Amino acid sequence: MTNVFVIGLGLIGGSFALDIRSVYEETEIYGVDTNDNHLAQALELGLIDKKARLEDVEKADIVIVAVPVNTSLKLLPEVLDLVRDDAVVFDAGSTKSLICEAVAGHPKRRNFLAAHPIAGTEFSGPSAALTGLYTNKVNIICEVEKTAFKLQEKALKLFTDIGMRIRYMDPASHDRHIAYVSHLSHISSFMLGKTVIEKEKNERDIFDMAGSGFESTVRLAKSSPAMWAPIFEQNKANVVETLEEYIANLQQFLDLVKKGEFEAIYSEMENTNRIKEILKGINVPTP
Amino acid sequence: MTNVFVIGLGLIGGSFALDIRSVYEETEIYGVDTNDNHLAQALELGLIDKKARLEDVEKADIVIVAVPVNTSLKLLPEVLDLVRDDAVVFDAGSTKSLICEAVAGHPKRRNFLAAHPIAGTEFSGPSAALTGLYTNKVNIICEVEKTAFKLQEKALKLFTDIGMRIRYMDPASHDRHIAYVSHLSHISSFMLGKTVIEKEKNERDIFDMAGSGFESTVRLAKSSPAMWAPIFEQNKANVVETLEEYIANLQQFLDLVKKGEFEAIYSEMENTNRIKEILKGINVPTP
Repeated sequence: MTNVFVIGLGLIGGSFALDIRSVYEETEIYGVDTNDNHLAQALELGLIDKKARLEDVEKADIVIVAVPVNTSLKLLPEVLDLVRDDAVVFDAGSTKSLICEAVAGHPKRRNFLAAHPIAGTEFSGPSAALTGLYTNKVNIICEVEKTAFKLQEKALKLFTDIGMRIRYMDPASHDRHIAYVSHLSHISSFMLGKTVIEKEKNERDIFDMAGSGFESTVRLAKSSPAMWAPIFEQNKANVVETLEEYIANLQQFLDLVKKGEFEAIYSEMENTNRIKEILKGINVPTP
Repeated sequence: MTNVFVIGLGLIGGSFALDIRSVYEETEIYGVDTNDNHLAQALELGLIDKKARLEDVEKADIVIVAVPVNTSLKLLPEVLDLVRDDAVVFDAGSTKSLICEAVAGHPKRRNFLAAHPIAGTEFSGPSAALTGLYTNKVNIICEVEKTAFKLQEKALKLFTDIGMRIRYMDPASHDRHIAYVSHLSHISSFMLGKTVIEKEKNERDIFDMAGSGFESTVRLAKSSPAMWAPIFEQNKANVVETLEEYIANLQQFLDLVKKGEFEAIYSEMENTNRIKEILKGINVPTP
């Protein structure tokens, strides 16, 4: 019997619980959450077999820490303090540099694997958990060499058993890249939602005119502020850089519109159309 | 037998052809397109029954003009010159003020109905046509009072028969609102794609890290420049206004990140979360 502890029973932790249960028969899944409602809900939804307290992780073979990244900084060292020598602890946070720093000097650093599964939806909480969320998704592993070999093996087997593809990357590169392909999308979406909502105060019925294009670009504005504010905080330098570049591109587009240079605008759009080819490589979930 | 002419056999015109055929048995659908390949493709795909030339619209009972909005300005008066007194002509353009102006003084103005079906995908050409694209979608009708009553009736029956919901609006209001809920989404998406592609020149493998959130926000950057450049041109004043507001919101968000005011950022996101409720009212197509 393998004891798996899931700390944080939201979309990410809950979906790990579902997928692990579906591939491993001999597993007992324990849930830990500071939110009692989420804990009860996770039990009711069958995500976990048993409620547990943080101290119980001493029983764990595998610990998944799926909490907001600010909480992880404090929680990961505490979890490492408690686990057995043969337990592997991995996180699922959207930032990696500060997470890796937080455990860098810990005597049990070799029990930790820094991970970022590129998977999710805009929903949150235990009810957002999805079976198969991780199938064919990329899991980015940072500083793999700092994890004990046998524990690397244990975690990577779990990831590949639930269908994930593994990529290795250093924490700084992870944080720089992810700012472009994830953090910026969230900010763009939140601010688009804000711009339109501000307008809607005065103008009724505007949303009757909104189609699927609006829905698609603004979908991420439903995301959890409790998850995202700490991500932007931890990845501040990269977020600032990407956002400055995005604003500069929008400003340049605005200037072309103002000057009536619609041939240049045509070229801008035509050049960006090659995103089609790029997107073909992205695996889109069907939640 | 009703003769329907579809001028412009792309996503919008082609999808009208498919839906009209599925609800009206006694219909002959004629296709007109300056692109011979599209015309041949439309016939092969069964979108149309016969190829036709513009001059043939004298045979038409219903004419659908589904071409880029700059082409419409020139083409609509020509079509009106040619049609019979009992034919109704409607367009499907994403701008309405200049379109309505272009036909305002035409002796057959009463044969024209200005329409904007809020439906589409990011794909284009005859192969992008979809059965059921218009089911449950809103069709915005402008200056309905300027269309002959019997011809209003004929067109509106067609729209409701293929499942559309009708909204009436003046052209100026249409153009102002649609800038927020459609044109801005497209610009935001194109510039997001541009920002990330510029980065990718130097940094390989970045797209392995992109998930469904990126895909969603950047999807519209696949859209046709030939369709969109003229829309931005015709709706210039509104596009400038919405884009300035969007950039100001992004700039303010950037300033908060720079100053480390993450509680304010949390509030910004929390306030925008109510987009959830708003989006519930939007009908999302399943292409």
